[in-house]
Parts: sequence; structure tokens; C-alpha cells
Amino acid sequence: MSWEANVRKVTPYTAGEQPKGQGVIKLNTNESPYPPAPGVKRVLHEYDADLLRRYPDAGTEPLRSELAAYYDVEKERVFVGVGSDDVLAMAFLTFFNHPSLPILFPDITYSFYDVWAELFRIPYQVQALDDHFRIKEEDYLKPNGGVIIPNPNAPTGELAPAAMFERILRANPDAVVIVDEAYIDFGGESCLRLTDRYENLLVVRTFSKSRALAGLRIGYAFGSPKLISCLQDAKYSFNSYTMNSVTLSAGVEAVRDDAYFREITDKVVATRERSKKELAALGFSFTDSKSNFIFSSHEKYSAKELFEALREHNIYVRHWDKPRIDNYLRISIGTDEEMDALFAFLREYITARGN
Amino acid sequence: MSWEANVRKVTPYTAGEQPKGQGVIKLNTNESPYPPAPGVKRVLHEYDADLLRRYPDAGTEPLRSELAAYYDVEKERVFVGVGSDDVLAMAFLTFFNHPSLPILFPDITYSFYDVWAELFRIPYQVQALDDHFRIKEEDYLKPNGGVIIPNPNAPTGELAPAAMFERILRANPDAVVIVDEAYIDFGGESCLRLTDRYENLLVVRTFSKSRALAGLRIGYAFGSPKLISCLQDAKYSFNSYTMNSVTLSAGVEAVRDDAYFREITDKVVATRERSKKELAALGFSFTDSKSNFIFSSHEKYSAKELFEALREHNIYVRHWDKPRIDNYLRISIGTDEEMDALFAFLREYITARGN
Repeated sequence: MSWEANVRKVTPYTAGEQPKGQGVIKLNTNESPYPPAPGVKRVLHEYDADLLRRYPDAGTEPLRSELAAYYDVEKERVFVGVGSDDVLAMAFLTFFNHPSLPILFPDITYSFYDVWAELFRIPYQVQALDDHFRIKEEDYLKPNGGVIIPNPNAPTGELAPAAMFERILRANPDAVVIVDEAYIDFGGESCLRLTDRYENLLVVRTFSKSRALAGLRIGYAFGSPKLISCLQDAKYSFNSYTMNSVTLSAGVEAVRDDAYFREITDKVVATRERSKKELAALGFSFTDSKSNFIFSSHEKYSAKELFEALREHNIYVRHWDKPRIDNYLRISIGTDEEMDALFAFLREYITARGN
Repeated sequence: MSWEANVRKVTPYTAGEQPKGQGVIKLNTNESPYPPAPGVKRVLHEYDADLLRRYPDAGTEPLRSELAAYYDVEKERVFVGVGSDDVLAMAFLTFFNHPSLPILFPDITYSFYDVWAELFRIPYQVQALDDHFRIKEEDYLKPNGGVIIPNPNAPTGELAPAAMFERILRANPDAVVIVDEAYIDFGGESCLRLTDRYENLLVVRTFSKSRALAGLRIGYAFGSPKLISCLQDAKYSFNSYTMNSVTLSAGVEAVRDDAYFREITDKVVATRERSKKELAALGFSFTDSKSNFIFSSHEKYSAKELFEALREHNIYVRHWDKPRIDNYLRISIGTDEEMDALFAFLREYITARGN
């Protein structure tokens, strides 16, 4: 039937596997190995469910104000969505509408960017990272319809300095520049403060990694009041109420508990640094990740071989059959115990093969 | 700055006011006057918040399977989204891509349809309801890029027979036909069973009205496996995880408690029928609503005047300053006590003015 002729053709993003069952060590989707702030549980357990007959706050309060207070910005500079994917999808739709120029992003990066570009029929041009998987600043100084770069980049974990983004912003007053800071809380320098000076900068964040709330779906963004207002209008034209009432309240508690947030991010960072030493001793090389994962390659065993051996052993990491990165594994940072189980398996695997 | 030149220009949908505070009688957004099923509270209160560090099920399980079982369809025929607005937005994006023909919908209808059409740059042509606010079937038999009609229609409450939709479907094998059944549970005949025979039919529903869960944001849809698979692909290209884990579990309980669902919808229907009598006695005329609201006009006092007088008295109903309907009020069905307070105010208002 020809109704199909008018269906928007897409090739969807493929998320990491979500294996279930006991004994699985899940280091494949960059989730937190620690539970969310205790206040989240309290909100759920004390929630007055009768209130759910009412629509939530369309302006995403009280979470929007709580984020504004925590990050010390006016609330007109804050946007909240259903995970950073929702924020990014809405930003692509809102800002990337140049009649002819392509948007620019790295060749090795979050693999949802080209999916959104295809979905919304936005022309794009990927810019190759250098041989050390670093952003080449000069690639983003040419005329474009928009720029999006994650910092740290994924799946490489490479951090670029905020000063690089400032130079890119200075060269691009006519396009919106998005810095995707999904992993910034694990030791990077944020571009947040640049939003005061660059009206066209959008900084996007998520609760899914550092705030241990992937299951609740909360993303947010900072920008100039004018930029955020455009994003809000598009959101109100898509779905008035994207964030449910329970999530808005639980999110507030996750933001409020700063001590807990620092505790779990510090633990992840400490485990990451220790993991780098362990992996190096096992013959792996890797970028100097500032995120909650390590992107690494073994001197002797192919990533695909290791990926499959690990998987058989119920240890899940991420591997892409893509040019340039097909010999790399992206290993999320788990608890110390989980990482030790990984290292033990790898040590045994390598020893058994006589090296 | 010229980044603004490439911003998608939109005029957002305006949702009904959400007044807060004690003593407010809120009959303006078609929310349920009753709390959600008791199982929803139980899910929240017993939820293992530690699980929230993990991503939710991208396939919207277990809610998708629960809906499939309840409505006795295969789960490949069910789609779940963040309220029916999310489902409808995604359906517009997915299905309404004809290169030239406009989509068709009534002139008086849910005022989000033209917002989505503008957002996605879909050409559309509104079809005038007849003088009794009824759909004119023949308007939807001409060539088009898609059809969307709510049944019952909003804000009129008018129900059309499923047989009319079958005739429209028969005339439109080359376009997707969406029946928006947000209010069907209050006494209408659903088009659900037609999805077996018409591959191009999408039936959209919501938990916000009859299931008293506006605050949780759950919408769903039925269609042929092929149609639903297109919608899933578009959804996976927009946001892998739209539904959070808590919502997916709470939604299951709302579906499971059929006795409670029937009890509260029956109560709303009984109050609606009594309200028709009361309003008629007060000099109102209205369509024979089969929804959870009444669309009515007074023989003597203008809708705007009554709207403002009610609002001043903390009773909120809905009024639109739009051609053809500017002399109508849409009054959501509240509890019997809330409706009695409305009638008492109106009686006093009318009596004080000597009629």
C-alpha cells in the first residue's frame, strides 16, 4: 500500500544491550555503578499519588529552578528535557535549519548525531579527529549551519579545553554551537560560563551518568535566555508536558544532595584512574579519558575477540564495528569489585594464551 | 545575531491554566476528578530506587505487553509514548510526509494539530464542521496527505460512529488515518478493531483522562504491526528511552485494575449526564457530549462574561477567543460536589441579573 511511500525513512540509533539476570557485570552503557541520591527514594516513597490526576508543571518546575540555583544562573537560562537525548533532538530541530550549509561534528562521536540529522533532514559533514582521536579545532572555523561536539568526546573520553570552544564560538556568530557535556562531571572544565558571553552557545547535560538516574530520564541545558526561549517554544510545540511530576520532584533531590553527588563522582574518577594502571599493565593502550569510561585497544588481542570472550563470561562492554574504532573497547567504569572481576578475567585470558 | 535566522519559527500550543492554591475548582483541562488506581501509589511507595541508575526498557516494557493483553492485541500492534501528545507528534513526523497533498482535520478540533503541522512544515487544510459541530464525512474522501480526527471530537464532545471512520479509511488507502481517541473511554465506540483490517489506521489513546494519570505522561496507540514498526523506528531515532522506569511500572498497575477504571469512568459519565440536565435548566445549550466535558453556550450571557465571572470566583473552565466557538465554554466534568458548586454559582449569577 502506498501510505508507506510517505513514511519518513530512518535508520534508528542502536543503544547498548540491556542484559538482565544475576551475575551480569554491565560496563556497556556508561550508567553509574552507584545508586542515585537517597532523596530520590524518599520522594518516591512519600509521593502523594493522588496528585497524578493533574497535569505536571509545563514549565518543568520545580526542577528548572533547582538547577538554576545549584549552577548559579537565572532560570531563564535553563532547559529541562526527557534525558539529554530529548534535549539534543529538540535542539537539532530548533536550531539546525540553515537553508544550505551543513552542520559539523566529529567523525568519531556520539552516534546519535547523524541519526538526528537524518531524521530531520539536516545536511551534515563529519570532521575527522586526528590520529590521537583529538578534535581539530580548525575544522570548525569554516562556514556551517551549526556545530555539535561532545566534551569529553564519546566514545573516546578525550577532553578539549574550554578555550578551544571559545575560539570556535568566536568564529561562528551565525550558527548555534552545542557542547554536549554528558560526561563533564568526571573531571572536565565546563563551557557553562561561556553562555554568559555567547548568545549562540548551548551546553547540554544529563542526570543519566554522574547523577545515577538513567532510569528517570532527565537532561538539561544552559544557554542565553534568547536561545533557551527558542528551545522552550519548540518544546511547547511538540509536547506541552514532557516531564512527569514524579520525575520533576525526584530530580530536585538529586540536585540538592551535593555531598552525595561529589562522593559518587569522586569514586568513579578514582576507580577510573586505577583502572588505567591495571589496563596498561595488561597491555592495553587508551586515551586519557576524563569521563566515566575508558576507550582502549589491546596490543595483541583484537577488540572483537575480547568483546566476545567477555560477553560469554557475562561481562558486557561496548564495541562498534566501525572504521577507525573497530579495534577499541569502550569500558564503563563500574564499582571497584566489578573492575577487579574484569581485570581478573583479562589476566587469565591473556595468561592462558601464553602472554 | 544571525544564528536566529535559522531558528525554526513556531507559535506554541497554549495549554489550559494550572491555577494552584486552596479552594480552586478546576474544570478547565479535562483531568480526572478522581485519583489514579491504588496500585499506582503502591508502585511508587515500594519502588526500588537503586534500579534507577540503569536505563529503562527501550521497548517500553512491561507497559506495552500489559496494554496488549488488556486490549487483546499482539504487542507488535501497540506503541507507548510520553502522553498522547508525544505519540501524536511522533506520528505527524513519521507519517505525514506527502510531497504535495495537505493533511486534513476539522476546523474546530484539538488545537495542537495545526501546531504540529507548522512545526514539521506539513501542509494542512482544515475542514469545517457542520452547523451542529459534526464532522462532514465527505470532506475526508478527497485526495490528501493524511487525516486526523479526534473521536469524540474536542472541544465539542461530539462522537462519530466507527462506521464513518471505516468509510474514510476505505477511501484513503494511500494515506495514514489517525483517530485520536483521547476521550473514547467515556462512552464511545472505538476504532481499535478496525486496525485489524486497515493497515494505515492509527488509533491514539491517553492515560491522562480516563485513567487519571495526567501527571505521569502516558499515551499509547494501536495499529498494524507495519505501521507501529515505522513509529517505533522514528521514536528510536528521536530518543531511545522516552518512558522512564517508574512510569512504565506504574502504568501497568493502572491498566490492571479494571474494576477501578470502570468505577471512575462510570462516575464521570453519570455526573456528565446529570450536569447536562442542570445546565439545560439554567439556560445552556450544548452538544451531546460523550467525553468528560460539556461544550456549552448560554442563551443570554456571553461565554466570555461567564468565563471571567467564574474565574473570579475560583472556578476555572476553558474558553477560546476563536471564530465559531467564542461563545462556548468547555466545562470538564468534576466530582458531583464540584459540579454542584458550579451550578450554584451560575444559578445565583443568573438570578441576581433577574433571569
